[in-house]
Formats: sequence, C-alpha cells, structure tokens
Amino acid sequence: MKKINLQNKFRKFSDQWSPKVIEEMNDYQFKLAKIKNDFIWHKHDHTDEAFLVIEGKMGIEFEDETIELSVGEMIVVPKGKKHKPFAEKEAKIMLIEPKGVINTGDALSKFTVDNDQWI
Amino acid sequence: MKKINLQNKFRKFSDQWSPKVIEEMNDYQFKLAKIKNDFIWHKHDHTDEAFLVIEGKMGIEFEDETIELSVGEMIVVPKGKKHKPFAEKEAKIMLIEPKGVINTGDALSKFTVDNDQWI
Repeated sequence: MKKINLQNKFRKFSDQWSPKVIEEMNDYQFKLAKIKNDFIWHKHDHTDEAFLVIEGKMGIEFEDETIELSVGEMIVVPKGKKHKPFAEKEAKIMLIEPKGVINTGDALSKFTVDNDQWI
Repeated sequence: MKKINLQNKFRKFSDQWSPKVIEEMNDYQFKLAKIKNDFIWHKHDHTDEAFLVIEGKMGIEFEDETIELSVGEMIVVPKGKKHKPFAEKEAKIMLIEPKGVINTGDALSKFTVDNDQWI
C-alpha cells in the first residue's frame, strides 16, 4: 500500500487514448489517460464508467447532447450509453471502472488497447 | 446524467467528517468530505476504500506507518486495515467505495453518520 501522486504517474507515459492502471480497489481500477482529438463512438454494455478531468478540458458526445468537462469536473456514463470522448488540446483524465473493461467497449478498432497496462 | 463540478458540490455543505454522495457508478459511490483534526481508528472488513485529496493535505495513520497526502494524491486502504484519517487544517477529499459503507466502519461512535447523504 502506498500513496499515488497523479502528476508523477502522468509523467511516466505519453501515448494518447491508452489508459494506464495506477491502482485497484476491490475489483475496480483507477486509470489515467492522456487524450487529444476524437476517440471513437462506443459503449460498455456491462458497466458504468467514470471520467474525472485532472488537467485541461474534454468533451463527451452522446447521441442527444455533448457535455464539456473542465478540471475538477466528472461524469459517470451509464452502461450501454453510446459516447465519443474528445479533447481539442491534450487533456489528462482519470477513469474509474471495473477490471477488464476494454477502452473501445463494443467497437474494436485501431484504438483498442490492452486493458491492463500498469504504470 | 450530468456532469459534476467538485468545487460547486463542496460549497453545498460545511460539516466535517460527514461524507456526501455526489454520484454513483454501478454499486459504488463517489463521496466528498471536509475533514479537520482527528477521525477515529476503524476498519472496513468487507471493502477497500479510496481517498483522493482535492484541496489541502491529509494524513492517514496506520498501525505501522503514517502516510501524508497532498492535492492530487490518492491511496487505497485495503479492506480490514485499521486506519485513522486526520488533517491539521481543513482538507477537501473524495472517497470512492461501495454503496452502504459506514464512515466509521467497525467503530460505531459519535462520528458515525448516515451513509447516504446526497448533495
């Protein structure tokens, strides 16, 4: 058990749209990601997914609205809800979700990455 | 579904050591708390518990060490591990844990509060 400094962890990687696991809580994981430009439309059929913005700004497009998030803002995307995250400039975010969640959900693509990359 | 601004939520309450629920993700809850001085020794036998410091500094005493956390730092306390949070000056923190967790765990006391206070 040790504390985790989020900014120190962000310094350990530079790839975008590739969530890095920093800690686990029961069967959930805390992940950090750097994001820029558009991700792809996808959904997670079996779990909600929490986003918290640590630095910068991001948005999430839904089929019926777009929600923009700044530092210190969070949202929980309900399971099954289609969404497309984006960021005009690189943003640093935290994701919280169960172990084993694939970043692109139901939409396997070139954006799909290994879901258990620890830093 | 809507975004949550953490600082706006912190403005909605002033009591200390009384976690407020701001959102749920599956069967987990995100809670905010203001803390100052010493909490009590306790443990949660059935779940890990995540702490993230949003403003200020806090510490957590364990039986074998004390860990201090600043803004942007987090820790997951394993289930069953005795701990005593504290803060010299008021700190603002986020807790993430399953629904139904009692703030004082196994140590019912005057610090024990209702575990489902939404703001």
